[in-house]
Amino acid sequence: MKIGNQNYQSIWIDESDPEVVRVIDQQKLPFFFEIKDLRSVDDVYTAIEDMTVRGAPLIGAAGAFGIYLATLEINPQTNIRDHLSNAARYLISCRPTAVNLSWAVNRVLAKIKDEHSPASLSKKALEAAIEICETEKENCRQIGKHGLKLIEEISKNKNGAPVNILTHCNAGWLACIDYGTVTAPVYLAHEKGIPIHIWVDETRPRNQGAKLTAYELGQNGVPYTLIPDNSGGHLMQQKLVDIVIVGSDRTTRTGDVANKIGTYLKALAAYDNKIPFYCALPSSSIDFSISDGVKEIIIEERNPNEVINVTGFSEGEIRSVRICPEDTVAVNYGFDITPARLVTGLITEKGICRATEKDINNMFSYKIN
Amino acid sequence: MKIGNQNYQSIWIDESDPEVVRVIDQQKLPFFFEIKDLRSVDDVYTAIEDMTVRGAPLIGAAGAFGIYLATLEINPQTNIRDHLSNAARYLISCRPTAVNLSWAVNRVLAKIKDEHSPASLSKKALEAAIEICETEKENCRQIGKHGLKLIEEISKNKNGAPVNILTHCNAGWLACIDYGTVTAPVYLAHEKGIPIHIWVDETRPRNQGAKLTAYELGQNGVPYTLIPDNSGGHLMQQKLVDIVIVGSDRTTRTGDVANKIGTYLKALAAYDNKIPFYCALPSSSIDFSISDGVKEIIIEERNPNEVINVTGFSEGEIRSVRICPEDTVAVNYGFDITPARLVTGLITEKGICRATEKDINNMFSYKIN
Repeated sequence: MKIGNQNYQSIWIDESDPEVVRVIDQQKLPFFFEIKDLRSVDDVYTAIEDMTVRGAPLIGAAGAFGIYLATLEINPQTNIRDHLSNAARYLISCRPTAVNLSWAVNRVLAKIKDEHSPASLSKKALEAAIEICETEKENCRQIGKHGLKLIEEISKNKNGAPVNILTHCNAGWLACIDYGTVTAPVYLAHEKGIPIHIWVDETRPRNQGAKLTAYELGQNGVPYTLIPDNSGGHLMQQKLVDIVIVGSDRTTRTGDVANKIGTYLKALAAYDNKIPFYCALPSSSIDFSISDGVKEIIIEERNPNEVINVTGFSEGEIRSVRICPEDTVAVNYGFDITPARLVTGLITEKGICRATEKDINNMFSYKIN
Repeated sequence: MKIGNQNYQSIWIDESDPEVVRVIDQQKLPFFFEIKDLRSVDDVYTAIEDMTVRGAPLIGAAGAFGIYLATLEINPQTNIRDHLSNAARYLISCRPTAVNLSWAVNRVLAKIKDEHSPASLSKKALEAAIEICETEKENCRQIGKHGLKLIEEISKNKNGAPVNILTHCNAGWLACIDYGTVTAPVYLAHEKGIPIHIWVDETRPRNQGAKLTAYELGQNGVPYTLIPDNSGGHLMQQKLVDIVIVGSDRTTRTGDVANKIGTYLKALAAYDNKIPFYCALPSSSIDFSISDGVKEIIIEERNPNEVINVTGFSEGEIRSVRICPEDTVAVNYGFDITPARLVTGLITEKGICRATEKDINNMFSYKIN
């Protein structure tokens, strides 16, 4: 998608230097646009950990490229299998909630398991990582196509008045490789000239909505309004929201959705006000091994400093301000679980299905690999 | 309640200079403790508008003192009745949602309606304003007494394990004159040695939870943890909340509760997880003239800059940082409505009642004045 007049992906290999993985530094957006070079497994780990890259599909892609970078670290003394499995374990440990990370890392490992020379390992790993990126892009395109129908239908029912879509966090192209999951139908509707307007939850504590979703919608010309996370219930009560679409970091085979903390509260409000609540996700986010989101999905606790301090822009630079007393104890859960009963449907690359074990099974036949 | 080792009210008249109303500047807390002098109706209006003073009961008291200050502005050329009714209208216009403001202003006007000399007007107005303060303090004490029983019962059921109370915004002593509404039972339980722990919603956009509730609980030795507003649903799902207690800016005679934006979302989560959800409020917050909160209560829209910028402390001073792109459009609704069906009960100075027209009527016989 566009930044200024130029098209970008959120991760790529530059032909001029194929031993470097390039990413947009999402810690600096929207204040500074900077490209960061990742040259090692450690660089990838740090980039995922400090959220230079974030978003389930992008984290997966970064992990895949991490294995590629690991193959470049092989020297004659390396025990190749140990080295690669250590790298994989290390990368996967970085963010336990997003299933895409382990999925992508393991997929690259599987693709290179019959290779032995460093050169062929690297070649195959790079191919596998790029294939994952292309698959995720195609998945987003398909999610866009299916989700567009929902927006078109609402637009028709409103006689062309703007369709108000509420979203939480950033499940945009920055979180994916391109297009986004939530934003793919949004961008398609906008391109088709369907009037839309996005309510952007700021998404405390890290404000991915305020910083990233607002930025990418603005750069691509989509009208939006930024709101505090507290506002969605009131907007829904006042019939100012037509549909809620959020992403997912992990979805159980029964349709429970782990997504950015606060998603569950919006699902409750949508349910209470009879507003459709959809999750847009590639099937790589579905964890077919688990059935109870609340009991089985590990919710990461992040650094409480993200709650205590808010980062933003002031006098030409990125600064943090403390918003509470100096000795405050805070806690920072990264995700919550929206039970399937509150989810109207899942928008996937294969189509839209209800968030039930039966419908998910019918759509995917449990054959994701 | 205590700041450091000293006891304060959030508004008072100093004997050394009875023509000045003193307040704690709540815009500067918790970073600086400063006392502000209000010397005119304009000073009071500005203090309410810029949230130097905030919280329904305190706004009411400030409005009452505003009429007292208006009597001090009378000179021989003044048309006294016009002057006082203009002052009242002006003060009431400042915050339309909190019913206490108009209630308190009108109460002072009623108490002085038979006075004619500036001196007697001032004397009576001051008496009426102080009486309002004393009544609100006594109301809070009574709310504390009644609410304490709820906490004691939970504590007993948990065999003395800490009672986890979630609250939103600041309905503490700073919002009232003393004790607070939500915090009155909290402080009483703490004094009695009942182990309690408060989950403090930061309460975007103005972060009254992070700035004020955290501060006053800390100063009075009550254990608390600061959380983003997004966290409450997850905590309730994980059974980490025993009871939710929030304040109210206006409650209909049918039990619909207008309170700080985001309250409705917490009520939904409490309901979904079968956790008791109580509103603590003096009867001065009940608007007996209306029955449908969603349709009849005007929700204030505040300045969108409060969403776009976050104020906090950095390098020795209070600073704002912008958290979104420069050209962001934002909207800032101040309150939302929690429908009575989600409210387990109202903790009032008269006792606890269910949030139904019948029970509210039984408790108050619609005879508040």
